[in-house]
Amino acid sequence: MIDAVLERIDADLEASLERLFHLLRIPSISTDPDYADACAEAAVWCQGALAELGFEAEVRPTPGHAMVVAHRADGASDGPHVLFYGHYDVQPVDPVELWHTDPFAPRLATEADGNKVIVARGSADDKGQLLTFVEACRAWIAVTGKLPVPVTVLFEGEEESGSPSLVPFLKANAGELSHDVALICDTGMWDRETPAITGSLRGLVGEEIVVTAANKDLHSGLFGGAARNPNHVLAKILADLHDESGRVTIPGFYDGVPETPAEILRQWEGLNFTAADFLGGVGLKLPAGESDRSVLEQLWARPTAEVNGMIGGYTGAGFKTVIPSKASAKVSFRLVGDQDPEAVRAAFRAFVSARIPADCSVEFHPHGGSPGLRVSLDSPYMARSLEGLSEEWSKPAVVIGGGGSIPIVGHFKDILGMDSLLIGFGHDDDQIHSPNEKYDVASFHKGIRSWARVLAKLAG
Amino acid sequence: MIDAVLERIDADLEASLERLFHLLRIPSISTDPDYADACAEAAVWCQGALAELGFEAEVRPTPGHAMVVAHRADGASDGPHVLFYGHYDVQPVDPVELWHTDPFAPRLATEADGNKVIVARGSADDKGQLLTFVEACRAWIAVTGKLPVPVTVLFEGEEESGSPSLVPFLKANAGELSHDVALICDTGMWDRETPAITGSLRGLVGEEIVVTAANKDLHSGLFGGAARNPNHVLAKILADLHDESGRVTIPGFYDGVPETPAEILRQWEGLNFTAADFLGGVGLKLPAGESDRSVLEQLWARPTAEVNGMIGGYTGAGFKTVIPSKASAKVSFRLVGDQDPEAVRAAFRAFVSARIPADCSVEFHPHGGSPGLRVSLDSPYMARSLEGLSEEWSKPAVVIGGGGSIPIVGHFKDILGMDSLLIGFGHDDDQIHSPNEKYDVASFHKGIRSWARVLAKLAG
Repeated sequence: MIDAVLERIDADLEASLERLFHLLRIPSISTDPDYADACAEAAVWCQGALAELGFEAEVRPTPGHAMVVAHRADGASDGPHVLFYGHYDVQPVDPVELWHTDPFAPRLATEADGNKVIVARGSADDKGQLLTFVEACRAWIAVTGKLPVPVTVLFEGEEESGSPSLVPFLKANAGELSHDVALICDTGMWDRETPAITGSLRGLVGEEIVVTAANKDLHSGLFGGAARNPNHVLAKILADLHDESGRVTIPGFYDGVPETPAEILRQWEGLNFTAADFLGGVGLKLPAGESDRSVLEQLWARPTAEVNGMIGGYTGAGFKTVIPSKASAKVSFRLVGDQDPEAVRAAFRAFVSARIPADCSVEFHPHGGSPGLRVSLDSPYMARSLEGLSEEWSKPAVVIGGGGSIPIVGHFKDILGMDSLLIGFGHDDDQIHSPNEKYDVASFHKGIRSWARVLAKLAG
Repeated sequence: MIDAVLERIDADLEASLERLFHLLRIPSISTDPDYADACAEAAVWCQGALAELGFEAEVRPTPGHAMVVAHRADGASDGPHVLFYGHYDVQPVDPVELWHTDPFAPRLATEADGNKVIVARGSADDKGQLLTFVEACRAWIAVTGKLPVPVTVLFEGEEESGSPSLVPFLKANAGELSHDVALICDTGMWDRETPAITGSLRGLVGEEIVVTAANKDLHSGLFGGAARNPNHVLAKILADLHDESGRVTIPGFYDGVPETPAEILRQWEGLNFTAADFLGGVGLKLPAGESDRSVLEQLWARPTAEVNGMIGGYTGAGFKTVIPSKASAKVSFRLVGDQDPEAVRAAFRAFVSARIPADCSVEFHPHGGSPGLRVSLDSPYMARSLEGLSEEWSKPAVVIGGGGSIPIVGHFKDILGMDSLLIGFGHDDDQIHSPNEKYDVASFHKGIRSWARVLAKLAG
């Protein structure tokens, strides 16, 4: 039966791509209120796509962007009921001038090495990925009239903006959403040939800080030398975050950070990963993190502090000799092990406050807060999924760490009592969150085939 | 005769204000290419105003914004020929949301203490100031049919954007512009009651630096901890510019900085200036400069390093977990004594370059470069001007220092061989370069009267 489903997927690829392009044309940037209508449109599009496949599909309002929830439960009653999760919202597109084409005008392109890609904001994160699952369902239904296992789908529209509505929604709908295992498609493969399930992920805490000095912008000639410059105050705070060895200096920051077991470090060494290749791919060569850790450890097992944005004073064309009233920064922390997001937030705030001169002030705006995660490695669903992936890619699938944060895994565990499997088909060079985001056509095509196989394996 | 001229000024005040409002309505922001047409319009307006008074007035093109040059030489042949300088361009208006009304819709307002002001971008810097001179000429011509001394006028349109065309223009037109003394109206009074001539000014060097790390924006989850963040590199550079005592740390920066003579420091102590009042007026209380210097010394006699602008990464609404490819800052230095602008620029570039990791790069964009200045105190024109100012304000005029930079004084000396007198009617609370810039109606009115008196005194 699986062969007929895979054939159907191959034959339908062009139409699958057309459907993806539809979704990619909707500029569903969740963090920017100007795109609220586009987010609503993307939710409706997803609901329609699922309804067309015979799901009972609904757009569910939240105080923010809507959720899409869908059920189709004609699968084998003895197979596990899966909850599939993806997100239809995307990152902002600035600096938009660095995009070679309109971020929301998806196109197929062939890279210098012959690799075929889909270029658009959201192609890899996460519209292309979530559709791999939907298209796999479509093929199963087309060939067999039903799905191999009962499926519930949850699509979120606020993943790129801190998921403010998610926890209340999961709590309010726990009965409807809690099933045997969650499948999440928002991660990557190990490399172009090797499929992977992500076994650990870093958490995330974000803080925006706004430092205020004088009560108005000042002329640097009239006031310079005597009046406090908030750019200087902010630069000092941000510079103080790391010591010379790349270690974060906030007192208590490393509380709860475990040492990675020697055996895991050995496995990672066997992955044929080199810092030179990884950093070289983006034009760098010197690892910037803790100098006594390998790059893979820096990425998968160590917490970080990153200044994601900073601004103060005049930043337009030309020059303006101003001492601004305010300067601000967005700082995020990746967390591992048992680091407590709220403890890290409090420690950071104390660290900042201690560096604010007595006649200046600081405001804090929290953004997100999720701990690091480790996925259970010994479930039968993990084993069956690895098997399905290995068959599709003709290479053993591996369990890897991840540097990014997918807080939903923790929420599914805590609120719905479910384990998650993180299966995705992205690549490090997909430029997610960057200009010219792309998703390999092979990721999309073989991603659909992979899900078709995983669903079959899960049915047993 | 002077009484009739002053009467005429009083009677004509409403019309003078109307003319000023005309000029203020033209958004001549020289640093922003979007406002090039407005700069051209302001030049033509100035030319027209002078031609109407019988000046031979021309708009002279430059590679940047035009100069306005005008002559009227029917004054007493034995009086000095004066060159009057002002600038018709203005600063940008951002953050525009902090303006209470449109920056280019001038209005009269009455402040809480009853003080009447003209609110608009450029009202004090420098359109209101330059028109005080033009209106004084108008009154002299209306009453006597001529000017007390021969007058040449030079209005520039690039003062707020580094004056790139000025030096070549002065060199090419030295014969036409070189006369006995230059009068520059771009400075302030000591306080609301006390007129002043500014005797020393700080120089200015600007540098924009752009730090590049990776060759594209990166996802802070996928790359954070291993990839260099240019925000961190930049923050460290900016934080390193000052030590704990407020002193600039760039090697060689203080070369050529003289100690202020004890007698001058004593004179300044007698000025009844307090740090508490000066800083308290803008919501601050702790002097931020070198901790072993008085605030007046910090402002008038000590060099500074100020970060006028910095930006890197995502600074819009919401959050974006990006490690940007680039971060940049605009840094300016105020210079005093014999500090060499190009030596300071070179020392800063070396300081920055030494802090750029081997796999990152930095670009430098120069902006301006003028040394500090001290005006000759013993010319007869200085004495006569102080006399005219003292009579108008019924209080002895004082010679003060200035924190800002007016590079034109050095250019007039070096290229035209002329001394300058810096006479202006601004106040510290005029909010020049800030939102809600204003110029006191009294500054405008009594400024016109002051120039009428100074011209009479100069004629002898």
